[in-house]
Amino acid sequence: MSRIDLNCDMGESFGAWTLGDDAGVMPWISSANIACGFHAGDFSTMRQTVLLAKQHDVAIGAHVSLPDLQGFGRRAMKISANEAHALTLYQIGALAAFARAAGTRVAHVKPHGALYNMAAKDAALSDAIARAVRDFDAKLILVGLANSELTKAGAALGLPVAHETFADRSYEADGTLTPRGTQGAVIENIDAAVAQAVQIATKGKVEIRGGGTRELRADTICVHGDRPDAALFARRLREALENAGVAIANNARA
Amino acid sequence: MSRIDLNCDMGESFGAWTLGDDAGVMPWISSANIACGFHAGDFSTMRQTVLLAKQHDVAIGAHVSLPDLQGFGRRAMKISANEAHALTLYQIGALAAFARAAGTRVAHVKPHGALYNMAAKDAALSDAIARAVRDFDAKLILVGLANSELTKAGAALGLPVAHETFADRSYEADGTLTPRGTQGAVIENIDAAVAQAVQIATKGKVEIRGGGTRELRADTICVHGDRPDAALFARRLREALENAGVAIANNARA
Amino acid sequence: MSRIDLNCDMGESFGAWTLGDDAGVMPWISSANIACGFHAGDFSTMRQTVLLAKQHDVAIGAHVSLPDLQGFGRRAMKISANEAHALTLYQIGALAAFARAAGTRVAHVKPHGALYNMAAKDAALSDAIARAVRDFDAKLILVGLANSELTKAGAALGLPVAHETFADRSYEADGTLTPRGTQGAVIENIDAAVAQAVQIATKGKVEIRGGGTRELRADTICVHGDRPDAALFARRLREALENAGVAIANNARA
Amino acid sequence: MSRIDLNCDMGESFGAWTLGDDAGVMPWISSANIACGFHAGDFSTMRQTVLLAKQHDVAIGAHVSLPDLQGFGRRAMKISANEAHALTLYQIGALAAFARAAGTRVAHVKPHGALYNMAAKDAALSDAIARAVRDFDAKLILVGLANSELTKAGAALGLPVAHETFADRSYEADGTLTPRGTQGAVIENIDAAVAQAVQIATKGKVEIRGGGTRELRADTICVHGDRPDAALFARRLREALENAGVAIANNARA
Repeated sequence: MSRIDLNCDMGESFGAWTLGDDAGVMPWISSANIACGFHAGDFSTMRQTVLLAKQHDVAIGAHVSLPDLQGFGRRAMKISANEAHALTLYQIGALAAFARAAGTRVAHVKPHGALYNMAAKDAALSDAIARAVRDFDAKLILVGLANSELTKAGAALGLPVAHETFADRSYEADGTLTPRGTQGAVIENIDAAVAQAVQIATKGKVEIRGGGTRELRADTICVHGDRPDAALFARRLREALENAGVAIANNARA
Repeated sequence: MSRIDLNCDMGESFGAWTLGDDAGVMPWISSANIACGFHAGDFSTMRQTVLLAKQHDVAIGAHVSLPDLQGFGRRAMKISANEAHALTLYQIGALAAFARAAGTRVAHVKPHGALYNMAAKDAALSDAIARAVRDFDAKLILVGLANSELTKAGAALGLPVAHETFADRSYEADGTLTPRGTQGAVIENIDAAVAQAVQIATKGKVEIRGGGTRELRADTICVHGDRPDAALFARRLREALENAGVAIANNARA
Repeated sequence: MSRIDLNCDMGESFGAWTLGDDAGVMPWISSANIACGFHAGDFSTMRQTVLLAKQHDVAIGAHVSLPDLQGFGRRAMKISANEAHALTLYQIGALAAFARAAGTRVAHVKPHGALYNMAAKDAALSDAIARAVRDFDAKLILVGLANSELTKAGAALGLPVAHETFADRSYEADGTLTPRGTQGAVIENIDAAVAQAVQIATKGKVEIRGGGTRELRADTICVHGDRPDAALFARRLREALENAGVAIANNARA
Repeated sequence: MSRIDLNCDMGESFGAWTLGDDAGVMPWISSANIACGFHAGDFSTMRQTVLLAKQHDVAIGAHVSLPDLQGFGRRAMKISANEAHALTLYQIGALAAFARAAGTRVAHVKPHGALYNMAAKDAALSDAIARAVRDFDAKLILVGLANSELTKAGAALGLPVAHETFADRSYEADGTLTPRGTQGAVIENIDAAVAQAVQIATKGKVEIRGGGTRELRADTICVHGDRPDAALFARRLREALENAGVAIANNARA
């Protein structure tokens, strides 16, 4: 029986503002990427989210971001390698304190938003992030876009890496995501998205926009938590994958 | 030979702004209270300050604060016990990541500014802070105003506590600090401040404003880093204490 | 025919987070208290909210707050009179720029959350806020809790003041609000809240908790925008008041 | 007799942190670019700086920045035209409130740091900034790098624009600044920098790196306030210019 990880961004509330359906999604996933205060997730939210993840036996990950609360970490920002290293350490550490207080630990690190996209293409930035992860704990799993500079940088430092793929995003012939804004870039239909996830998990292949398929390494599938139907989507993904003989489990357990 | 700890607030720069003379003070102290981003100390500053402390074999402590950068953590703010617990964990964790990356560890926790003053008198707030310290690591030393609610709360939870005294602050008959604003509250003269520190460290006694002396427990003496002559003051304190037969060493080594 | 103002807090979204039903409430009110970035309301939200208010011919007010985004301005914070003066000016000015760009102007100022509650009882703080309002524009209406230190301070400086009352809060014999947490402090039932508003607007009287009525000056009635049924509540209030012969209009038009 | 404006960045302290020698520089300049809280300059600092500028009869300008306090507004950040428009309005308005309270007004707007550099090359961003300035007050002077997209955008909207040149930066044959990092990019020697300013102001020409001169439009000369000798530099600039028959006066007076 094969196995795959289902990850979702969690803990993206902040102060008086709530975002996402953490309680609805958590039962269906195996890894939670928890906001660490830089794009979302104040200290009180972080503590609650860690406890919720632990309760559902979901792996806890640091969703590290550029320092941009008002932009939700989605605005590209020119930072130095030293800044990337330091902000990654800071956020992993902050989350790790809540994990430790809850009797558990951080299992993975995934850059968020603009930092994720920047790192995917920037070897120096990726190296800085990967070194921060290694400097904290060389057993942490570094999650990045499949076949990106980030997964390369993690592997080069000997970190366990998880290549991330998307159920509800269209792929190009070269294995990159169809850019948002392009027709069909986001697969809104749940059935189609679930089918893509099953194909990725069972065959290691994905349909290409324009026709044909290509191989795609997939260690974890992202469940977008900002869909209005996120909980249903997560549940449908898990059930379809299990029905296809794929166990849902985080990579730390692999 | 007796022993005492000399602590000083460090890492209080932020971004483009520098504050304090960390390089000048660090050689003379045994414990550094490092700002964790809430009142000062961005992630880049924290990394540098941890490295500087390690280089001088100075114990690293989390100087945890209310979330108030513009007010430098000096404005009292009404927070719940849950918030106090969570913000303490967050800041200890963030600093611990830099310590871990540098191959060392956090040794103590000291609330900063308004949080320090509030905790000194507020048993519930102190309990929340002390629980956060214990939940992170029950071997961490909790530093608080001597004979305050904070040191009581730490002791009640079985934490090692350090009672803090001041070389350059005047004391009242009941052992509290003379309130700032009162004539003579701050001992500006270095010789007088050094003499008070020696008396505290060698005899466990302090002169009282208005006359007489009283006993005072002192596990650590604070060197105010915001004096213009902070480096000289730190050096003079250390030399005078050593000349009086008092070794300078942090409490983690005790 | 008598007249009263209906005011509601607006523009309390921030970045990726949305809060409140501004589009649903705006058609029924006559004054919008718009967040100015300190407790909520980033610059993009402010621009949109000003335009929405203008479209509905609703008076634009600066909802000035303590600088506490994570606490939504609800945590009491000890600030100096100078700080209160400066932060009030800053926030009025920021909002006024959007009003000016939209071809309109700021008509009133209402402190938010903890600042509102602190000012109600603190004459020095109220004076600082009132001076800031006057220093910006002595024709601005200062909105405060009815019969509070804030309305007193505004009147002492010659500002037009609006005494604020609440449809859905219970009153004590001395005219203060029943403290939250006390049984019956919040009037959840819409019919009862609407009835209280009509009594206030038509008779200048309010029922007292424990029995009896008392006189109450009311220049504006607050519609709580954080009720889940805020739009319905606003509409019901307006319709009931109009049916009772009370016109809804902001005080700048009076 | 000819005339030129001398401008300097002012009010770049924040909370407990001080930066620059505002009191030392202010007597020698004619325009102050005052930080508005986004890269520096909290509300208390803004109020003081406005009063200091008024006392010296120096024109008050809004030094508008990307929202990046920790990076001092020096990190390029990808923002939309709508965001640029809104953040420019917000900051102008906030400063204008302090000017109004002091019985004066904002005279100019100059983007800061990364926003200044981005706008110099980005027509859409410059248009958004210029529209914000116009939407606030079409008589405000927009200050930008000489012959940049920003001065073009301002002129296209009918705003008065001020082309800015630098005393202590080397120029290339095409009129752009020699990039920082290149040998000789910054003219450290005061005499050489003063001589360049005099040549710009009296002849409208500047020496080119590598030899030769070129024409350069100059409505204002920047005095870098972050030089350790900023006050001396400002004084030397003013005295040399006046000795060469150039009056120092801001463009609003022209």
